[in-house]
Amino acid sequence: MSYADLEALGRQLESIDHAIAILSADEATNMPVGGGEKRAESVAFLYGLRHETATAPKVGEWLAKAQSEELSEDQKLSLREFRRVYTNATCLPADFVRRKAQAEMRSEQLWRDLRAKNDWAGFAPALEGVVALAREEAQMRADALGLAPYDALMEQYDPGNRVADVAPVLNTLKTFLVDFLPQALDAQARRHAARPPKSVSGPFPIAQQRELGLSMMQALGFDFTHGRLDVSHHPFCGGVPTDVRMTTRYRTDEFLTALMGVLHETGHALYEQGLPRALSHMPVGQARGMAIHESQSLFVEQQLARSPHFWTWAMPIVATNLGDDALAGWDVEDVMAEVNKVERGLIRVDADEVTYPLHIILRFELEQALIGGTLEVADLPEAWDDKMRTYLGLSTIDNPADGPMQDVHWPAGAFGYFPSYTLGALIAAQQWRTIEQALPDLPGQIAQGDFSAVNAWRRDNIWQQASRYSTPDLLRRATGETLNPDIYIEHLKRRYG
Amino acid sequence: MSYADLEALGRQLESIDHAIAILSADEATNMPVGGGEKRAESVAFLYGLRHETATAPKVGEWLAKAQSEELSEDQKLSLREFRRVYTNATCLPADFVRRKAQAEMRSEQLWRDLRAKNDWAGFAPALEGVVALAREEAQMRADALGLAPYDALMEQYDPGNRVADVAPVLNTLKTFLVDFLPQALDAQARRHAARPPKSVSGPFPIAQQRELGLSMMQALGFDFTHGRLDVSHHPFCGGVPTDVRMTTRYRTDEFLTALMGVLHETGHALYEQGLPRALSHMPVGQARGMAIHESQSLFVEQQLARSPHFWTWAMPIVATNLGDDALAGWDVEDVMAEVNKVERGLIRVDADEVTYPLHIILRFELEQALIGGTLEVADLPEAWDDKMRTYLGLSTIDNPADGPMQDVHWPAGAFGYFPSYTLGALIAAQQWRTIEQALPDLPGQIAQGDFSAVNAWRRDNIWQQASRYSTPDLLRRATGETLNPDIYIEHLKRRYG
Repeated sequence: MSYADLEALGRQLESIDHAIAILSADEATNMPVGGGEKRAESVAFLYGLRHETATAPKVGEWLAKAQSEELSEDQKLSLREFRRVYTNATCLPADFVRRKAQAEMRSEQLWRDLRAKNDWAGFAPALEGVVALAREEAQMRADALGLAPYDALMEQYDPGNRVADVAPVLNTLKTFLVDFLPQALDAQARRHAARPPKSVSGPFPIAQQRELGLSMMQALGFDFTHGRLDVSHHPFCGGVPTDVRMTTRYRTDEFLTALMGVLHETGHALYEQGLPRALSHMPVGQARGMAIHESQSLFVEQQLARSPHFWTWAMPIVATNLGDDALAGWDVEDVMAEVNKVERGLIRVDADEVTYPLHIILRFELEQALIGGTLEVADLPEAWDDKMRTYLGLSTIDNPADGPMQDVHWPAGAFGYFPSYTLGALIAAQQWRTIEQALPDLPGQIAQGDFSAVNAWRRDNIWQQASRYSTPDLLRRATGETLNPDIYIEHLKRRYG
Repeated sequence: MSYADLEALGRQLESIDHAIAILSADEATNMPVGGGEKRAESVAFLYGLRHETATAPKVGEWLAKAQSEELSEDQKLSLREFRRVYTNATCLPADFVRRKAQAEMRSEQLWRDLRAKNDWAGFAPALEGVVALAREEAQMRADALGLAPYDALMEQYDPGNRVADVAPVLNTLKTFLVDFLPQALDAQARRHAARPPKSVSGPFPIAQQRELGLSMMQALGFDFTHGRLDVSHHPFCGGVPTDVRMTTRYRTDEFLTALMGVLHETGHALYEQGLPRALSHMPVGQARGMAIHESQSLFVEQQLARSPHFWTWAMPIVATNLGDDALAGWDVEDVMAEVNKVERGLIRVDADEVTYPLHIILRFELEQALIGGTLEVADLPEAWDDKMRTYLGLSTIDNPADGPMQDVHWPAGAFGYFPSYTLGALIAAQQWRTIEQALPDLPGQIAQGDFSAVNAWRRDNIWQQASRYSTPDLLRRATGETLNPDIYIEHLKRRYG
């Protein structure tokens, strides 16, 4: 039976993915510097093996034959997802994939060097090459999938997301935010005037910060029999669902950055740990995609951990782990002022709940134009500056390092990925509102550190659904409506207005 | 060119081995308990892939064709070693390998359970099955290699080792030891009477013990850009030459067990780190085998770290890391009395330099008889007891758990492996004597913590030779003579007489 062949193949791919995931986590957390070259060889070999195994012609035959086999409804969903993954993996010619990978690797290396030197002129030709390949890729994917080119790129990260649905949502949000940002800054200034912001003063020993993070992970439902917390230069959540490898990075002068990072990654980890274990070898059993994954981390970070209810519970935990002096004289409002600061800034990854979406919308608009051919790389610095001034009131025209050279995504050839960040924030807010309406006592539960109800809802409606449905279908089934920007807007008004 | 094909294959196998080695080290040091099942699947997949890749028929064709290609002398040595490995890996039918693996896995599981219950009767039938398969295997290997059956088993662990050479050496040693052991115990009793043994009193914090171990590793030449020290339940030296994963296990009431363990594993690690890096993808570039590997760990543990010169240097390092109280009032002789205790005991892994070889010789004799068919499993408890009484003056007749059920080797089907432990000890002593004769100031160097000369000799004569020669040839080239038990005997007389 071909469906059984696909299951056997799935188990092989799971074994390869397991090796890659653990080797990669080990590389970031444990590997001595001299181990890098052979590690890279080993991981590259495994990636090659994975691609070869997953895209073999016989897989296409099994997919076709399984179509006419007698399958349960669940197996039909599983087969559909397997075919989707196969089509996405095989729709580019092998020769093109090699050419693209080489160009992207060179461009990313060049970017690392030239961003540090703020050298746009030196970098632009490499980016032009990457954009040309991305346009080619988008067209080939579009042809294979019957989608518009940019939609075909988004499809890799969030199946079912289309510009026709996403653009109006982000436009509504943009219109609101451009207007709201000055108001939020004024409101913040008034709050700060009425109540001067406090700041923590360390040193906070790393061992104690680690214990604090572990306590909160535990309370939030992280399963330590299936995961652990380590340290790495760039925090991540990796590993596999049965062995989730989460990391953070500590500084001793303050603890909130690391703690909020731990809470964010815990959101990713809960999703992975909550996926249906019996399906872990099939595409249908894996996390839905980038926007949904981000919605799970942002649910914990933004909806839970930036709320006053959460800190009613969390402040004593901080005192237990870091000592009574850590937040001596603070009340919940002081914590809110500290963790929910709004600021106009150039850097996406440093942005807050209010400004972050504007950084994303800027990139979403520009990359559509780049892929569509209505914008050329040569014109990118001005186009970027133009939008930055309009959306955030800041200029990057003399500072391309913090303008179009800011992120690794484009140099590495990842177009269609940026919107997922903000869609994740919107989806998190929409999930929160659904749960809040179903469970009126939710703020009280959070204030007691009881996350069982939110986790139960998310387990049933998100985690256990894995990749049974497209991103928009999953959201609609979970919350009863399509993506609704007003919910996030209400959230911002409540918190920052 | 077929030799180039073999090199490309070697790189693939190196990548697979890399993944297996790091996944296994991670499993023992970092993996949460719930990650075990999927980890086992992933590692089993990689082992299967490795075997399939290494034993493919085309490899045999390349080996045959490369034979007539124009090769350098080094390439000829490399080709010979590649063929040896290939023959050893392909001389058993796949069906037999599967049957054997299953029987051994069941037997090992049963052994873990029944050894704890001291249940020989329950375990014996499983061991009978394993022995029957080992006899079959030995015969098949013997036919393929043109060797006697037991020699063909030893060949897997130490290429070139033969009973005809090994047995006389171990017989000489046995004759000496049976006589020497009571003398050594008397001499020890006299030393203890003249100078009552001291004992350390903790607690010794683990972080400080770790720093102590790291200091000594560093001084001995461990390269921390290509390796690290972690904690695991059973200490090991794993990983790959560019990323050696060493472990130890600490107790807080004393520090010498962990420290001696670290020193032993450092010996293994130096060998791996010292292998010729440019050949790491070829069989010829890998460690020679089990006895030579053990000779490198025992060189550090027995020849260096159980000597008074070493402790002249090491005692201040202990004080620096654990505090002046750690060995307050001790002198080097007290340390010697503590680390070089001799004792009649039932357990091989707890034995000392004097008694350990007797445990090995007992097993070497019994397993030759088992493989040769002159001893049956049913008669093993009595045969074991008989030899234990003769060699060590102890009986195990009522205690099979500490008799023929003591070790995992036989339940897991590893016959021909035991002699390597003691051959390693003898080879270490023989290397030491060669170095000592070449460098008269050696004790003085050791007493100053200067290991550069011993490492330089070992790098040139052992590490960089990798698998260019058989085990006996490597020893003869390095020390100028074949394995000579008198050197180890002299060593024991000096230290314990």
